[in-house]
Amino acid sequence: MSLAPAHRLDVALGERSYPIHIGPGLTARGDLIREHLAGRQVMIVTNTVVAPLYLDALKASLGEGLDIREVILDDGEQTKHMASIGLIWDALLEAGFNRRCTLIALGGGVIGDMTGFAAACYQRGAAFIQVPTTLLSQVDSSVGGKTGVNHPRGKNMLGAFWQPRLVLIDTASLKTLPQRELSAGMAEVIKYGLLWDESFLSWLEDNMTALMALDETLLGEAIRRSCAIKADVVAQDETEQGVRALLNLGHTFGHAIETDQGYGVWLHGEAVGTGMLMAAELSARMGWLSSADVERVSHIIAKAGLPLAAPEDMGVEDFLKHMQLDKKNVDGRLRLILLERIGRAVITEEAPAGVLADMLEHWPRSSR
Amino acid sequence: MSLAPAHRLDVALGERSYPIHIGPGLTARGDLIREHLAGRQVMIVTNTVVAPLYLDALKASLGEGLDIREVILDDGEQTKHMASIGLIWDALLEAGFNRRCTLIALGGGVIGDMTGFAAACYQRGAAFIQVPTTLLSQVDSSVGGKTGVNHPRGKNMLGAFWQPRLVLIDTASLKTLPQRELSAGMAEVIKYGLLWDESFLSWLEDNMTALMALDETLLGEAIRRSCAIKADVVAQDETEQGVRALLNLGHTFGHAIETDQGYGVWLHGEAVGTGMLMAAELSARMGWLSSADVERVSHIIAKAGLPLAAPEDMGVEDFLKHMQLDKKNVDGRLRLILLERIGRAVITEEAPAGVLADMLEHWPRSSR
Repeated sequence: MSLAPAHRLDVALGERSYPIHIGPGLTARGDLIREHLAGRQVMIVTNTVVAPLYLDALKASLGEGLDIREVILDDGEQTKHMASIGLIWDALLEAGFNRRCTLIALGGGVIGDMTGFAAACYQRGAAFIQVPTTLLSQVDSSVGGKTGVNHPRGKNMLGAFWQPRLVLIDTASLKTLPQRELSAGMAEVIKYGLLWDESFLSWLEDNMTALMALDETLLGEAIRRSCAIKADVVAQDETEQGVRALLNLGHTFGHAIETDQGYGVWLHGEAVGTGMLMAAELSARMGWLSSADVERVSHIIAKAGLPLAAPEDMGVEDFLKHMQLDKKNVDGRLRLILLERIGRAVITEEAPAGVLADMLEHWPRSSR
Repeated sequence: MSLAPAHRLDVALGERSYPIHIGPGLTARGDLIREHLAGRQVMIVTNTVVAPLYLDALKASLGEGLDIREVILDDGEQTKHMASIGLIWDALLEAGFNRRCTLIALGGGVIGDMTGFAAACYQRGAAFIQVPTTLLSQVDSSVGGKTGVNHPRGKNMLGAFWQPRLVLIDTASLKTLPQRELSAGMAEVIKYGLLWDESFLSWLEDNMTALMALDETLLGEAIRRSCAIKADVVAQDETEQGVRALLNLGHTFGHAIETDQGYGVWLHGEAVGTGMLMAAELSARMGWLSSADVERVSHIIAKAGLPLAAPEDMGVEDFLKHMQLDKKNVDGRLRLILLERIGRAVITEEAPAGVLADMLEHWPRSSR
């Protein structure tokens, strides 16, 4: 193949470092994948939506001499539980695959998170490669090694830090992505601007209309800048002892919505979109953001087609109950990611319970 | 408390380093544990046999100000599966415990392996502490961070490398250990001499009768020397890319026996005892050991009360089928740990299939 990747980034993690390739048509670049395989045993994990679109092309591009098997799971966040991990493990053992096999995640964030977790715990750690096919997984979940599944009591409660050996982002796969999922992914893109880089946020404000219309060059640039910020943060703090927690902007509120409504009812990115606006509003009530800042956040979230209101049937207590189980909390104290200013997030335990409860009580609600 | 630990060793793994304390009465030394807790949330995982003996004493020694919960699982290798891990996770989530909680494994190797695995995957990694109560877990499984559970298709197929923060070995707990489990643990003690240190093997030959009669001073010394060898090997090769594989001497044959017979029918140490003798015999057929060497191995294994014969109903094909799935294999090629000489193990793919099959065919069988 003669297609060159348009961008290459590296996640600097010592002996666990790996490249991210970003460009159109990279699913056809099996050569980029082959050099990262641990051995000749390969298990592709995908789902019923992605398989008909890309599975054959990926297998063909991997070439000869490999023992390639596949697991095709159902689609959606509601499949992200231990039973699906069990199906992957069963397939690996049925194939007689050993520790030097390689798992390839072909799909969105759910497939990537589950494949990574299955790899992390297969014979105490097998290699895995991310081929993310949704905007959300391309800019967020495929990079950084967070893997896991949900538990009925909380999102991503079970999992491991397990880095991929390669992230291969084919931007052409966004052409087949439903608009709702494009919006969901854009929430995480906006997140990087809000928490880390005000100039990126301005760039997104200028280009959001073209991005939502799938301008390929601009999308490639948005993905590159998002991955660069994520790679930078992860290299500084792989296992979230400090700065990496900032990437959870909007996620404490968002996870509460997802868990409360039932996994898959709200897309993860949709919940994060609303959650970021809630974080901005709480930041304003702490005196850190101006009303104009909050307006700015609200405007770009709406422009990306994301919901602003919380679910109609979710009371203050529903929010607080789920937020109490957040992984960032220490000894039961609630920790939140808020905005000190646009482009600078902070982790804090300072938000007074009364201010939080008042904000939650007065937040607009709507049905979806 | 005024009891001082009789021995202290350190496992040198950079920021994952941790101490091993060995001595009589250490279950009462909650102060040694408290300094290694991640926060005030503590989950003790134990089983129905160990709980009545040591759980109250351990809880009392931990002192005030902690939120201590417990999970009491059934006893035995047949409980070492994902469903038990699910019970631990459920208990953690029901308690509302966050990522800064600490799991304490109070029990033998099964409890330690499961607690470590549950901790490794709880919210992507919680702290854990090993308080091993059997000889086998004290000299082997509590040190080194191998955690996991069995799958119907193979032993320890699912798991993670996850280091404890502390290993606290109370040698007084061996007084309540059934003789059969003492023998099983002694198999791993003998293993260290065979694979690493001929002088330790000679010492064991001189003292085996007294050790099996529970001489406290000698047992403490045997545990210290075993842990020192293990800590040394693990520090050189945490994730078994090389030298650590040598610790699997006898395990490829042993795991085949355990898997074939059904988990818990043979104790792990019993299967390893027989497996080490099989490895010695195959080493002799490769021309590496003399008949006198094999006789020496056979003699000390018998003296420790371990079985020499393989299960009556296990054919050559049964062995090969299970051995094919061994985690050490690469791309389907069988790798074995054999003895170049007494005190020096090697990893090899060189054993000819015919020689292996002939050895397996002529190996003595008996019912248990």
